[in-house]
Amino acid sequence: MSILLVGGGSRSGKSRHALLLARRFGPRRGFLATAQALDEEMRDRIRKHREERGEEFLTIEEPLDLAAAVVQAEPALDVLIIDCLTLWLSNIMLAEKEIDTAAQLDAIAASKLPCILVTNEVGCGIVPDNALARQFRDRAGFLNQQAMERAEEAYWTIFGAALKLK
Amino acid sequence: MSILLVGGGSRSGKSRHALLLARRFGPRRGFLATAQALDEEMRDRIRKHREERGEEFLTIEEPLDLAAAVVQAEPALDVLIIDCLTLWLSNIMLAEKEIDTAAQLDAIAASKLPCILVTNEVGCGIVPDNALARQFRDRAGFLNQQAMERAEEAYWTIFGAALKLK
Amino acid sequence: MSILLVGGGSRSGKSRHALLLARRFGPRRGFLATAQALDEEMRDRIRKHREERGEEFLTIEEPLDLAAAVVQAEPALDVLIIDCLTLWLSNIMLAEKEIDTAAQLDAIAASKLPCILVTNEVGCGIVPDNALARQFRDRAGFLNQQAMERAEEAYWTIFGAALKLK
Repeated sequence: MSILLVGGGSRSGKSRHALLLARRFGPRRGFLATAQALDEEMRDRIRKHREERGEEFLTIEEPLDLAAAVVQAEPALDVLIIDCLTLWLSNIMLAEKEIDTAAQLDAIAASKLPCILVTNEVGCGIVPDNALARQFRDRAGFLNQQAMERAEEAYWTIFGAALKLK
Repeated sequence: MSILLVGGGSRSGKSRHALLLARRFGPRRGFLATAQALDEEMRDRIRKHREERGEEFLTIEEPLDLAAAVVQAEPALDVLIIDCLTLWLSNIMLAEKEIDTAAQLDAIAASKLPCILVTNEVGCGIVPDNALARQFRDRAGFLNQQAMERAEEAYWTIFGAALKLK
Repeated sequence: MSILLVGGGSRSGKSRHALLLARRFGPRRGFLATAQALDEEMRDRIRKHREERGEEFLTIEEPLDLAAAVVQAEPALDVLIIDCLTLWLSNIMLAEKEIDTAAQLDAIAASKLPCILVTNEVGCGIVPDNALARQFRDRAGFLNQQAMERAEEAYWTIFGAALKLK
């Protein structure tokens, strides 16, 4: 039915704003984590995020096929936070899979389940030295634009504030 | 006559917004590319950008003396996109030339040709390890401020959206 | 009495905007520099900043205990710029001290002296390779959010422009 997009730099208050937006919807709330606990630091981050959300959200873990997860979750939920698109992109690049992000986002937008997409801005620093990081940066920027095109509402978070973009 | 400034992170929709602004003006549109095709990756980026613009724009390549290029292009064009200031700065630093960017921007602002300047925000990441990157970051920030001071209209692009700054 | 927050990327016009805001208050103006002149480059940056401010400001240097410096400065000043929070965080991490930044900010907010806090956005680039930089980035983001929560007025600076956040 609708995509809401919340993006910003790291620790800018994105996830908190997404939790806030989720309260607009019914009580059956889901949280789709794209993060994969591949090392200790990631495990730690995932655990902390889970504690922040509390018990209010049903957690779903899906690193790659977001569209399928949304279709499956649709009957059981009133709203779903998907956190985050840039880790999803990382997963796609690591898995060396051809995943059509535009088609996935179309499917999410077409679902009856309102989805709040969380993403990172990664393109406002110095051009990275290594080619893979440059490629990631480019693809993340394009992915964020794809999400923005499909969003009915969008926010840029900075210092914990949320500026409405559309 | 006037400078319009469009800046943002990489792949934030800067160039697309510049193309959109250019449509406000007459049909004789130019695109000044400051990029130099020094390696395969840059050649590839330049080619892709050219394809995105299509045939609608006359392409001019000038890595250093933007003011002279603007003066020369003035009689033949209704609007000129200059893309981008941060690559121009890179060129200046690589050429180890003393180019007075403020004087160049003054000359561009004084021209009868409306110029849409595209630039990158590069200062919102972690302080870079190497001194040259720190110097580039500082100079890019100052250059963007110089352009902003002379701009009649300015935009910050993020996720493909354009926030009006002035 | 009040915290005003000014944050943005490097060379985005933060300090200049802070100087501008300081003029709203009485003539007894202070500038608390958190920078430590540990090497030539830093000495140079500190000297340049001091020249930019001119004689109008009383300079205080304090790398760690900002709250104590504010309490001490309160009777003598009408306004104090604290520049900047991210260098303060650097100092705390280098000194390996346990400093409760939330308590420090509470004390600053409770002071009768209006304080203009300057900070850097460092979280909008690619995830840094090294763990210390990632930790700094996280802590800087949290610190900026702590400052924002306590601010009565806040600005995001970009290309020398200041967008009001609250």
